[in-house]
Amino acid sequence: MALGDNKKVRMGMVGGGQGAFIGEVHRLAAALDGKIDLVCGAFSRDMENTKATGALLNIDDNRLYASFDEMMTAEAAMPAEERMEFVAIVTPNHMHFPVAAAALKAGFAVLCDKPATLTLAEAEELEVIIDETHGLFGLTHTYLGYPMVSQARDMVAKGEIGAVRKVYVEYHQGWLAGEQDNKQAAWRTNPKTSGISGCMGDIGTHAHNLAEYITDSLVVELASELTAFVAGRQLDDDGAALLRFDNGSTGVLSASQVCVGEENGLSIRVYGDKGGMQWRQQEPNSLRVTRIDAPEQLYRAGTDHLTDAASRRCRTPAGHPEGYLEAFANLYIDFAAAIKAGEKKKATGVPGIKEGVRGMAFIEAIVDSSNNNSRWTKI
Amino acid sequence: MALGDNKKVRMGMVGGGQGAFIGEVHRLAAALDGKIDLVCGAFSRDMENTKATGALLNIDDNRLYASFDEMMTAEAAMPAEERMEFVAIVTPNHMHFPVAAAALKAGFAVLCDKPATLTLAEAEELEVIIDETHGLFGLTHTYLGYPMVSQARDMVAKGEIGAVRKVYVEYHQGWLAGEQDNKQAAWRTNPKTSGISGCMGDIGTHAHNLAEYITDSLVVELASELTAFVAGRQLDDDGAALLRFDNGSTGVLSASQVCVGEENGLSIRVYGDKGGMQWRQQEPNSLRVTRIDAPEQLYRAGTDHLTDAASRRCRTPAGHPEGYLEAFANLYIDFAAAIKAGEKKKATGVPGIKEGVRGMAFIEAIVDSSNNNSRWTKI
Amino acid sequence: MALGDNKKVRMGMVGGGQGAFIGEVHRLAAALDGKIDLVCGAFSRDMENTKATGALLNIDDNRLYASFDEMMTAEAAMPAEERMEFVAIVTPNHMHFPVAAAALKAGFAVLCDKPATLTLAEAEELEVIIDETHGLFGLTHTYLGYPMVSQARDMVAKGEIGAVRKVYVEYHQGWLAGEQDNKQAAWRTNPKTSGISGCMGDIGTHAHNLAEYITDSLVVELASELTAFVAGRQLDDDGAALLRFDNGSTGVLSASQVCVGEENGLSIRVYGDKGGMQWRQQEPNSLRVTRIDAPEQLYRAGTDHLTDAASRRCRTPAGHPEGYLEAFANLYIDFAAAIKAGEKKKATGVPGIKEGVRGMAFIEAIVDSSNNNSRWTKI
Amino acid sequence: MALGDNKKVRMGMVGGGQGAFIGEVHRLAAALDGKIDLVCGAFSRDMENTKATGALLNIDDNRLYASFDEMMTAEAAMPAEERMEFVAIVTPNHMHFPVAAAALKAGFAVLCDKPATLTLAEAEELEVIIDETHGLFGLTHTYLGYPMVSQARDMVAKGEIGAVRKVYVEYHQGWLAGEQDNKQAAWRTNPKTSGISGCMGDIGTHAHNLAEYITDSLVVELASELTAFVAGRQLDDDGAALLRFDNGSTGVLSASQVCVGEENGLSIRVYGDKGGMQWRQQEPNSLRVTRIDAPEQLYRAGTDHLTDAASRRCRTPAGHPEGYLEAFANLYIDFAAAIKAGEKKKATGVPGIKEGVRGMAFIEAIVDSSNNNSRWTKI
Repeated sequence: MALGDNKKVRMGMVGGGQGAFIGEVHRLAAALDGKIDLVCGAFSRDMENTKATGALLNIDDNRLYASFDEMMTAEAAMPAEERMEFVAIVTPNHMHFPVAAAALKAGFAVLCDKPATLTLAEAEELEVIIDETHGLFGLTHTYLGYPMVSQARDMVAKGEIGAVRKVYVEYHQGWLAGEQDNKQAAWRTNPKTSGISGCMGDIGTHAHNLAEYITDSLVVELASELTAFVAGRQLDDDGAALLRFDNGSTGVLSASQVCVGEENGLSIRVYGDKGGMQWRQQEPNSLRVTRIDAPEQLYRAGTDHLTDAASRRCRTPAGHPEGYLEAFANLYIDFAAAIKAGEKKKATGVPGIKEGVRGMAFIEAIVDSSNNNSRWTKI
Repeated sequence: MALGDNKKVRMGMVGGGQGAFIGEVHRLAAALDGKIDLVCGAFSRDMENTKATGALLNIDDNRLYASFDEMMTAEAAMPAEERMEFVAIVTPNHMHFPVAAAALKAGFAVLCDKPATLTLAEAEELEVIIDETHGLFGLTHTYLGYPMVSQARDMVAKGEIGAVRKVYVEYHQGWLAGEQDNKQAAWRTNPKTSGISGCMGDIGTHAHNLAEYITDSLVVELASELTAFVAGRQLDDDGAALLRFDNGSTGVLSASQVCVGEENGLSIRVYGDKGGMQWRQQEPNSLRVTRIDAPEQLYRAGTDHLTDAASRRCRTPAGHPEGYLEAFANLYIDFAAAIKAGEKKKATGVPGIKEGVRGMAFIEAIVDSSNNNSRWTKI
Repeated sequence: MALGDNKKVRMGMVGGGQGAFIGEVHRLAAALDGKIDLVCGAFSRDMENTKATGALLNIDDNRLYASFDEMMTAEAAMPAEERMEFVAIVTPNHMHFPVAAAALKAGFAVLCDKPATLTLAEAEELEVIIDETHGLFGLTHTYLGYPMVSQARDMVAKGEIGAVRKVYVEYHQGWLAGEQDNKQAAWRTNPKTSGISGCMGDIGTHAHNLAEYITDSLVVELASELTAFVAGRQLDDDGAALLRFDNGSTGVLSASQVCVGEENGLSIRVYGDKGGMQWRQQEPNSLRVTRIDAPEQLYRAGTDHLTDAASRRCRTPAGHPEGYLEAFANLYIDFAAAIKAGEKKKATGVPGIKEGVRGMAFIEAIVDSSNNNSRWTKI
Repeated sequence: MALGDNKKVRMGMVGGGQGAFIGEVHRLAAALDGKIDLVCGAFSRDMENTKATGALLNIDDNRLYASFDEMMTAEAAMPAEERMEFVAIVTPNHMHFPVAAAALKAGFAVLCDKPATLTLAEAEELEVIIDETHGLFGLTHTYLGYPMVSQARDMVAKGEIGAVRKVYVEYHQGWLAGEQDNKQAAWRTNPKTSGISGCMGDIGTHAHNLAEYITDSLVVELASELTAFVAGRQLDDDGAALLRFDNGSTGVLSASQVCVGEENGLSIRVYGDKGGMQWRQQEPNSLRVTRIDAPEQLYRAGTDHLTDAASRRCRTPAGHPEGYLEAFANLYIDFAAAIKAGEKKKATGVPGIKEGVRGMAFIEAIVDSSNNNSRWTKI
């Protein structure tokens, strides 16, 4: 991982105050490779929370801001070599667009948690803003940061499994099987902060994104049914869809947050006319590969048998498990490198606004199909 | 395994000549526990094949028959203590009904490979015949013979996972990923011998049956898409469906014969509001159980932790893997016991015509839905 | 599985009365392929038990014998085409030698449970008897009957893992972790019926046999420590040994019956200078193969990628799990074929007296080493 | 993760220049939680390497030192609030003692890679120095940093598996199966830099340490055989030992670097009279627990079912795999906390000199036993 000039890239953060989950994950990921400094934050609407968070993180008091607007203004006014270079947006979904738009317009790069925005319309508007500002925008579809996901994509691209026919992708969790009385559950199950979908917006989008990424093809149509199993829940906590891809393959996507005992069960299987592959997030360092004429193989992270893209995402030799934070950090390190390299709009190795728009279109389509008794709906 | 009187039960067989697959499996299963004697057969339309098969099986020449009709007539004319007591039907699907009808009318019990018949109408007619003749009829949905499938059903019934919400069932094979030039493939992909569905009739029915059995509930509606991926194939070799059950749970069923590298990948996951479970046919002696408030558990065949129904289906202590033939034999031993006990119509422990009709209705519904752009279709 | 002439081979049995374990396993295995008839038995010292057992098995009353001596005499006096052709010995260890010797001298083939005898001296004497009588003798080291064990041996022989360097073999059970109050435990922990070793005689011999079989090399020396963990137990219930092989490789063998929660955990790993392999009895249809320059592979029973010896031991296509009884039956079917073929002394595909002597020598050496503070002891 | 005052702890490093492996791992681990700043280094004997490494790490030029001596002197002369607070030693083994001794005498805390020193005598001398200086000393037995290792130790301590009887611990790698022409291999196989043992010093010590840590007991005696399989190799690349513990339990330890295809296969199984447990480093987030009277359970990192010590070592909810770097970082964060808390000699949560001395005594004993034909040798 050659780094060119060695100064750390300066990051600001919106969201991620005490009590939040994903903000801390972003910070750990950003810190891992020692290439990024968190220099400022608007961690919460509650300035006391922001101050407490900032103190824990050892951030200068005068770079803790009461609002994202204040942050953009103040940071933009600082000398170029001191002000933040990008902002990580780790708020609930409804705040993604306003913060991203403000940051881009103020000249900052943006690394945003998924889904890109609250609505498809916002995502499309954001795409326009990126085009106009030439701002760099990244979307943290974390799972694309795993080495063996790169390996899978590369092997499909090289034709190792032949023409893709079938994709099974699923993301099963159990943590919302009962009523949950915490911050994480509250915003995710509230349409105002989460959007028109709960489960599909939160994790179904990851599954959709992973399927399109590995197969390098697009879901063009789907037929779905979403359900809210827990009484009183306003948004889906479960759902499944039949999929049609632009390359003629078909698939099944399921996502659920009521599968008791499942933790973070994202997995994908892809079959072509010459082979197949399976990857599971909970044991991310293995990729099972089947072939029509040979025993199945297990490709492993950190070995000599990987593509360049996969290899460069491994920090340690085979057998030293790298996990979720390392995958996340792979997106951060690529985003930081893109800033150093002066890349515009899209950072090499990091999903961008195109994936963001796809994700929002997926959410709208899957909700729409479910609302229309599972009729086939175009994305 | 109570045995009552110890004389072996006498079995005849229709189908299963040399070159067939499932006939030999039936014979191994019937032989395993030493309770059944194969005494006669009409193994093939080709009398030479029947004779050769009979010779290998050490069957008296004069009980090798040129046709099933001849077999019914001749056996019925033999002394009661010598003639066959039941016939195993192991032909391609289109011959199930005629043979079963003839056997029942001639007073013989029938143990038939699945699916029950070629069409739903035939299955319903067969049900009438069973009702009228009071004949004993069993259907070899093999997978119900596994101990841990009984365990799963019993644990659901006892409420150990709470109210069922979600069922994922799949049956993925790869052997038809290319063109196949053998007898097995030929009849399964031919509508005349296989019926209106290929993959769904062959293995989708097993998945459907397993889901209804374990959850003790019925699929009432489905939305499906079936595909024939291999060029020139007349019947589906792949498909998936969204499911709605009569108890309000929902599900996903997928079946495919083009998943390169998959062998006989039947698996099911069921989630309720208190727990979940997972069973996989390729490692059939384990049942993974999740619980909302405790670490997941692994229930294992042959241990002290099983229900009575599961325990009685284990022949050996834990750790001595029992497999497919043993599961199959469990149906045979129960069917033989039912004959000895004089049971009528339905043998305890063995699927019967009700499951047969359900299976045919499932096939008709899943083909119908697919033909109508995946609209929800009642079973 | 070519069958030659189709008459079933006639088997007698000594041991295996009600309450026994392994006798029933032998009967199931013998029955599975429909090539063997159990025609007579001396199932117990208790004639009531023998009669009850025989009744359940539907054996003619006049072929149920009060003692093995009576059985040999009476059967030898029957017409050649009716009398038993071989005897299965399924008694506790101390009865193996007397029964085997009597049977061989009476002209019957012998298929004996392991270990071959109570002492090494007996085994050597038995070898002499076999030489003199030219009698056919087989030893049911069951695990050699698994297809993937044949595959492993064949791949080592073909040099696929290079020169063997290292063998790890283990057999861990937990059923004797506490005091056990049943027949199975009673004779196995009693020196009079079991011999000088408990755990090593019962299961350590299987591990030793498997290691020598797969690597086609001999353990020449070992250094061991055996333990009886349960208070009052007279024989070892646990032990381990360092191993030296005649080909310069080294190894570790461990066996235990006090590993709580382990079922029948026999597994072996073999490493050469070009690759390695791992096989586990509880998932017997897979063989993991590592290679120095390629991703690891999973060889699976029933696929096209097996050696001839492995393929012929599979009854069903890949994905239809075959287990312990099928492995056992593979030894029975080979033994029956050897009888039909008129083989002498050693049946193709079945361990013989050579393996029996090796096993007893192993037991004596491992006990001796342990009694001498683990000094290196030759086998 | 309470943090007290939020200023980062200042770290220096000796070793870890470009081309090294473990130095980079230490840096990633130190960076992960954002609590530690790397402020100075003597990364290599080659000042050009040190400068290049320092530049990549963005360290001030004037804090890059030509030797560890120079570093100690220069840093000690800096103002207390600027100078490094501890030094991470990541050199080959022969340099551990001189650097640690110098650092401790100069008043710096020391976090040292394992094994503690080149010889047992050095380790004992280091213990004296620590006693005299009251300096804080930590040893990075990385694997103790995994949450499920803490869980295992806590469950043993609480008696959940009863009185420990048996320990199987192994550490199998394959990377030295052939001749290796790189820096990592060179120093590890050279007695001058590695000490009297290759494989056992490098990874056997980890296995030994893990066994003693989880069971909270000591290996008092061992009987071993070590081998150098690769021609010309001066130190063992493989070995195994029978173990006796101070609590009456026994065990087997094996370590190898010639197991082709194995990556970093550290695993441990512990059995008591009431239960057992198994942990494997390559899937570190699971702990399999067996119980004498219940189905086996799978404890998982990040769930509600963990002890406090295990829980506090998880950063993310269940299902977000944490790996090797996170385990390593757990030692770093505890060491940094100990510095802040003013702990002396031993940092809470981090192995110290006692474990270091144990490790060196283990190495001496295992080599000694092997040199004396595996005689039992006291540690």
